[in-house]
Amino acid sequence: MAKNTVGVIGGGQLARMMIPPAIELGVDIRVLEEAPGMSAEIAATGVGDYRDLETVLAFAETVDVVTFDHEHVPPAILRELVSRGIPVHPGPDALLYAQDKLQMRAKLSELGLPVPAWAAVETADELGAFLADHGGRAVVKTARGGYDGKGVRVVSDAAGADDWFLALAEDGRGGALLVEELVSFRRELAQLVARRPSGETAVWPVVETIQRDGVCAEVIAPAPQSEGRIADVAADIARTVATELGVTGVLAVEMFETTDGRVLINELAMRPHNSGHWSIEGAVTSQFEQHLRAVLDLPLGSTEVRNDWSVMVNILGGPAEGTLQDRYPAALAAHPAAKVHGYGKEPRPGRKVGHVTVCSDDLGDAVFSARSAAAFFEG
Amino acid sequence: MAKNTVGVIGGGQLARMMIPPAIELGVDIRVLEEAPGMSAEIAATGVGDYRDLETVLAFAETVDVVTFDHEHVPPAILRELVSRGIPVHPGPDALLYAQDKLQMRAKLSELGLPVPAWAAVETADELGAFLADHGGRAVVKTARGGYDGKGVRVVSDAAGADDWFLALAEDGRGGALLVEELVSFRRELAQLVARRPSGETAVWPVVETIQRDGVCAEVIAPAPQSEGRIADVAADIARTVATELGVTGVLAVEMFETTDGRVLINELAMRPHNSGHWSIEGAVTSQFEQHLRAVLDLPLGSTEVRNDWSVMVNILGGPAEGTLQDRYPAALAAHPAAKVHGYGKEPRPGRKVGHVTVCSDDLGDAVFSARSAAAFFEG
Repeated sequence: MAKNTVGVIGGGQLARMMIPPAIELGVDIRVLEEAPGMSAEIAATGVGDYRDLETVLAFAETVDVVTFDHEHVPPAILRELVSRGIPVHPGPDALLYAQDKLQMRAKLSELGLPVPAWAAVETADELGAFLADHGGRAVVKTARGGYDGKGVRVVSDAAGADDWFLALAEDGRGGALLVEELVSFRRELAQLVARRPSGETAVWPVVETIQRDGVCAEVIAPAPQSEGRIADVAADIARTVATELGVTGVLAVEMFETTDGRVLINELAMRPHNSGHWSIEGAVTSQFEQHLRAVLDLPLGSTEVRNDWSVMVNILGGPAEGTLQDRYPAALAAHPAAKVHGYGKEPRPGRKVGHVTVCSDDLGDAVFSARSAAAFFEG
Repeated sequence: MAKNTVGVIGGGQLARMMIPPAIELGVDIRVLEEAPGMSAEIAATGVGDYRDLETVLAFAETVDVVTFDHEHVPPAILRELVSRGIPVHPGPDALLYAQDKLQMRAKLSELGLPVPAWAAVETADELGAFLADHGGRAVVKTARGGYDGKGVRVVSDAAGADDWFLALAEDGRGGALLVEELVSFRRELAQLVARRPSGETAVWPVVETIQRDGVCAEVIAPAPQSEGRIADVAADIARTVATELGVTGVLAVEMFETTDGRVLINELAMRPHNSGHWSIEGAVTSQFEQHLRAVLDLPLGSTEVRNDWSVMVNILGGPAEGTLQDRYPAALAAHPAAKVHGYGKEPRPGRKVGHVTVCSDDLGDAVFSARSAAAFFEG
């Protein structure tokens, strides 16, 4: 019998969006959610703490392969699953590079891949030295635990990360912070790639991502004027990262396109990613379907686009009062071609509660419609 | 608070295929399945007999609106729900015409819509008289309970339906059989329309359906060479039926295109329908999403096609041994653009266990790829 049961650790919207393609493809999907009533509730077969070995083991034993809604499961737990013969995709050796930004920077540098100038700093003096060498301003990041702009800070002063140094010392973790040059970039890009355990890879077109306050706000697929060199460079980088790090499933490589025309790797995410939500309607195979195929080691699907352009706009925060659904009558009436996605989450300032995608052969139409439709859900 | 919980009575593949768009749109979907482990299991919140008032009531009280996977819920139960203020879409007054083919024929004739010559016959003599008037051959149908070619028979002899007359008499139902002229048709068409309680309708392009042994085998969307008159006539008929019968949700009108160029109504189905599965990938709004929008009285979505052609091929029966999933590696490798759908049902001769859709701007490519991919799952 073919392996057909995928277990997802984490009950957020990424797990939720894996469920529709699982149902369509006939894959049995089960979710270990952190608490009752999360986004992926409909497929939840377990509730509990992903940092608890017994909880994760009990869940993992009911599925053919384990994958993730997020990258926060402790490596020791993942290694225990692997040692018991339970397939984990991406595996702990790869996932390490998405869990620890210092490890990631070191590995990518070792592979000769393009990254911003960086250093591991353990003291304000070391941070000061880096600042002195890089124009007096830099980005400091905690190695672990950051996301959506958290754990990232621009500093222009050697004392600018003292609180983080103190916190690292106080909680006994010790270790260093990552400091990086402040890249002068034209725009941010993201390149998604899927890779099967057997080695096959598939890339979607590189996309442009627009962030607000460190959070992804919009995605344009493909990135305008990216045909040719930029698209090729981005795809090559993502394929190299996936292959050299042994990533299985979907990998998102966030990148800077610099003002002097280089492409530098910013972050890695080893799971379906906000920059790929457009692919649900915009590509023949969505990132969520592809992730399921990849972790089951099934042949990957076509990543061709279905329209010239797809534009995805996040619904951040949601309505100040009431629910997303209260806004459906007006939004859907005004935008019959917009695809509205709700994550089943309570509105809260800044929270990703849904998104809207519009596919069109006219970029202006797609941008206008997606933004207009999303605007119905805010304020 | 906006109504947002849809309850589906019946746990088959039509209920199953409503789940992905419910999850995407953020609609809470719940299913009353007939037995544990059916196709729509993942959304099942109740198990029981849809002919039992208490079972249906207990389920209906947990949702905002009731709809259906099939048309077999007894009208008395539906009327009881309505009398208790529970919205039911389609409602019992409309559903009657999908439940009883004699009522349907009488109503469509009364509306002046094009139907084959027909009669209600209660005896072999009456059947004989109809045969004598219509070239000696005719189609006899049971008024209730038929589907997928069951309850339909071609007869050329007045005694050809004696067993059915006997069965009607014996089980005390009494009543008549439907007899219809044997239509000389060029091909079969199906026209889908969605209608909201507030009256808005939306039609997809008319499609060609290819039946084998009375079961839908393939669908080509749009029907080749249907632009213009045929498309307009089919859409007008479906809109008229939906409006005049007060249908809410998706309505499928199966039609004959006769050898002399007329369009005649064959059957009605008041739910998403096999002839609309192509729309999951082939239209901006699928029949399943549209059905949810319609029964919640939300504005309907665009029904534009996403490629020039979509071809859907049913997987009938499935593999002689093993599961559908055993065939995925070969099928998906050979057809990376084919969208394979598995219904989570055990393979069994003749059973609809899945389907494959290919969208393309080249009809030959779509037909070839869809048939080739589906063939991997049979034999």
